[in-house]
Amino acid sequence: MTTVGILGGGQLARMMALAGAPLGLRFLVMDTAADACAGQFAPMVVGDYTDQEALAEFASKVDVATFDFENVPSESAQWLTDHVPVFPNPRALATAQDRLAEKTLFRQLGIPVPEFAAIDSRNQLDAAIATIGTPCILKTRRLGYDGKGQFRIRTAADAAAAWDALGAQAGKVGLILEGFVHFERELSVVAVRGRDGEFRTWPLTENWHVDGVLSASLAPATVDAALAELAASHARKLAEALDYVGVFALELFCRNGELLANELAPRVHNSGHWTIEGSETSQFQNHLRAVLGLPLGDTRMVGHACMLNWIGQMPDALALLGEPGGHWHDYGKLPREGRKVGHATVRADSPAALATALGRVGERLGRQSQVAPVVAALD
Amino acid sequence: MTTVGILGGGQLARMMALAGAPLGLRFLVMDTAADACAGQFAPMVVGDYTDQEALAEFASKVDVATFDFENVPSESAQWLTDHVPVFPNPRALATAQDRLAEKTLFRQLGIPVPEFAAIDSRNQLDAAIATIGTPCILKTRRLGYDGKGQFRIRTAADAAAAWDALGAQAGKVGLILEGFVHFERELSVVAVRGRDGEFRTWPLTENWHVDGVLSASLAPATVDAALAELAASHARKLAEALDYVGVFALELFCRNGELLANELAPRVHNSGHWTIEGSETSQFQNHLRAVLGLPLGDTRMVGHACMLNWIGQMPDALALLGEPGGHWHDYGKLPREGRKVGHATVRADSPAALATALGRVGERLGRQSQVAPVVAALD
Ligand SMILES: Nc1ncnc2c1ncn2[C@@H]1O[C@H](COP(=O)(O)OP(=O)(O)OP(=O)(O)O)[C@@H](O)[C@H]1O
Ligand SMILES: Nc1ncnc2c1ncn2[C@@H]1O[C@H](COP(=O)(O)OP(=O)(O)OP(=O)(O)O)[C@@H](O)[C@H]1O
Repeated sequence: MTTVGILGGGQLARMMALAGAPLGLRFLVMDTAADACAGQFAPMVVGDYTDQEALAEFASKVDVATFDFENVPSESAQWLTDHVPVFPNPRALATAQDRLAEKTLFRQLGIPVPEFAAIDSRNQLDAAIATIGTPCILKTRRLGYDGKGQFRIRTAADAAAAWDALGAQAGKVGLILEGFVHFERELSVVAVRGRDGEFRTWPLTENWHVDGVLSASLAPATVDAALAELAASHARKLAEALDYVGVFALELFCRNGELLANELAPRVHNSGHWTIEGSETSQFQNHLRAVLGLPLGDTRMVGHACMLNWIGQMPDALALLGEPGGHWHDYGKLPREGRKVGHATVRADSPAALATALGRVGERLGRQSQVAPVVAALD
Repeated sequence: MTTVGILGGGQLARMMALAGAPLGLRFLVMDTAADACAGQFAPMVVGDYTDQEALAEFASKVDVATFDFENVPSESAQWLTDHVPVFPNPRALATAQDRLAEKTLFRQLGIPVPEFAAIDSRNQLDAAIATIGTPCILKTRRLGYDGKGQFRIRTAADAAAAWDALGAQAGKVGLILEGFVHFERELSVVAVRGRDGEFRTWPLTENWHVDGVLSASLAPATVDAALAELAASHARKLAEALDYVGVFALELFCRNGELLANELAPRVHNSGHWTIEGSETSQFQNHLRAVLGLPLGDTRMVGHACMLNWIGQMPDALALLGEPGGHWHDYGKLPREGRKVGHATVRADSPAALATALGRVGERLGRQSQVAPVVAALD
């Protein structure tokens, strides 16, 4: 009997436990919140990730540890690796935690990135705005998620406001300035690498964000095969450079038909939720297979899939449950503004059938604006 | 937040909890064994099904109750219905618990059955053997499962041995004598009926038993559409007659192209496990939808599917995990002779691809004889 420990007990840990049960696995989840939603289906250790006693209890009860949450302090991840196998490795985690480190690595590997510069002072900010040009985005290097810790700079005159908003973070989590990318598309490669180095990607995913938060994902993305192959090869290079084990997502912008890397999420990813129904093997099960050194599962598509994120509160399930091909995912969370509380995946046999189904779902749920860009892309 | 109570905490309850999590449901399982495998993913009440205190605790914590196990005493089921909604209803459960009652109902509804007779004494046994002819099977009316509580009578001379083996049960659980059916095929209809009477079946399933225990299931079955339709209409009649709510299976023999009803399983059923990957909606999720009065999910096939049962102990997972389309289900049970410890489902795009995959799986797992009849049927 193998017990997998997961640091972080949100929906990712929850879906991992559900996907791992058929492999005969048991789970132990560690989270700071006693009501973390993964705790509804797995036993928990409640404690801060820096609490050595809680970490020791956690480590003593698991055979291998992984993450649902990338912002676990790297000292904690390092401490854990001295006590139990941990995947992905702390170096990969540390790189992905830092926008500067990850963009530097992308560039080293020959993966194109938007212009960027490290920012430590107001003077540096002004200088970087002059070099990079506007519009641009000031971001915290660490601890950002769902578009938090970002300030959009439209003209050089916004520098003062940006510094007011984020300057205090410069000495704490660090800052980075990035050129704003006028992209046609956002894409992500969801990929998995095994302990033995075996590497697979799921078909490329196309994503739409609203207010910096993922709103919808479509797979396969509506791009040509060469671009999808290039994206996969970027992901492979990254995984190999970091000796990465497990699932990760590489987020990309597509501008003038070229790919620019945005960031690396060192875990199962929201843009891979469609794999539960839309692929032969879900990202959740393949992450576990990788972490345990088991053979990886087939990542081919089963139909065409679109995932719609539910933010803040769940829509009325009844409106979706009657839709053939509609799959509901309620994370068992209380509603709260901006919180990811669930998603739905719509699966269909063809792009045209998917577009029709999405039109129906959008209308029934009153979510026309959420499905509209996906339907347009399918056209 | 809705909590579903499940009486019985085996693999059926376990898979129900896993399938219900995405609906935002919580579960409470009641079982006599503290280590029942559903308890790995859901909280439990440990107690005997006749223990009123345990039942009361269970009832007080759930919004609706259902079964993973049909042999819950009908008084307990009745007691529960006075405290919480229970689906399927106790009358349906009681009918399905009794081979005589169910066969009588089949006949009343015009569903053909093998010859049968109730047996209360040795004299009746002899008389019934004379009427029905040999070979025939003496079975307990109640509490039989996986071929247990059965005695095959080859010639009239076996009557004494049959009575020795099962006669003591006549006064307890009752006995029934059935004509032995020289069937070409065993089939099952897995069906679901909603609270509002909506009725759906999954594509007909073909089954193979070894020593009275299910060994393999194939869907869709290799029969013509008219036969599949007749089977579905038998299931519908039954569901309506019993005002059945939830998933059930109707087991059928096919002899000379005609259908004979064997039995009704008033719960999700082993021959429907393939629906997890092989159908748009699994039997487990549709059972929950039915029981909760939610719209039923689409029961169409996703590819062609074959389920292989693992009895006694799990084969080596590594041999299957590398197979594209192979899906592993380990119930987290300790090995024990005759115990259902897991299953695998192989899914493919066509009957030919499924046959090829099964051939490979059979060889890798050393289970050639288990896959052989399925491969032959697919030919
Ligand atoms: N340089 C950029 N140019 C244009 N748009 C951007 C840029 N950086 C971020 N965005 C937009 O904001 C979204 C979120 O940004 P980013 O991925 O950096 O933030 P995050 O907080 O790490 O988000 P997540 O948790 O979703 O990965 C992007 O998907 C994109 O839509
Ligand atoms: N009358 C019969 N003629 C031929 N074979 C029979 C007959 N009754 C039972 N069998 C064989 O034995 C198997 C199990 O029998 P039955 O379904 O009555 O038992 P059970 O203990 O209720 O099994 P389960 O739990 O699998 O439903 C059948 O699927 C069939 O293969």
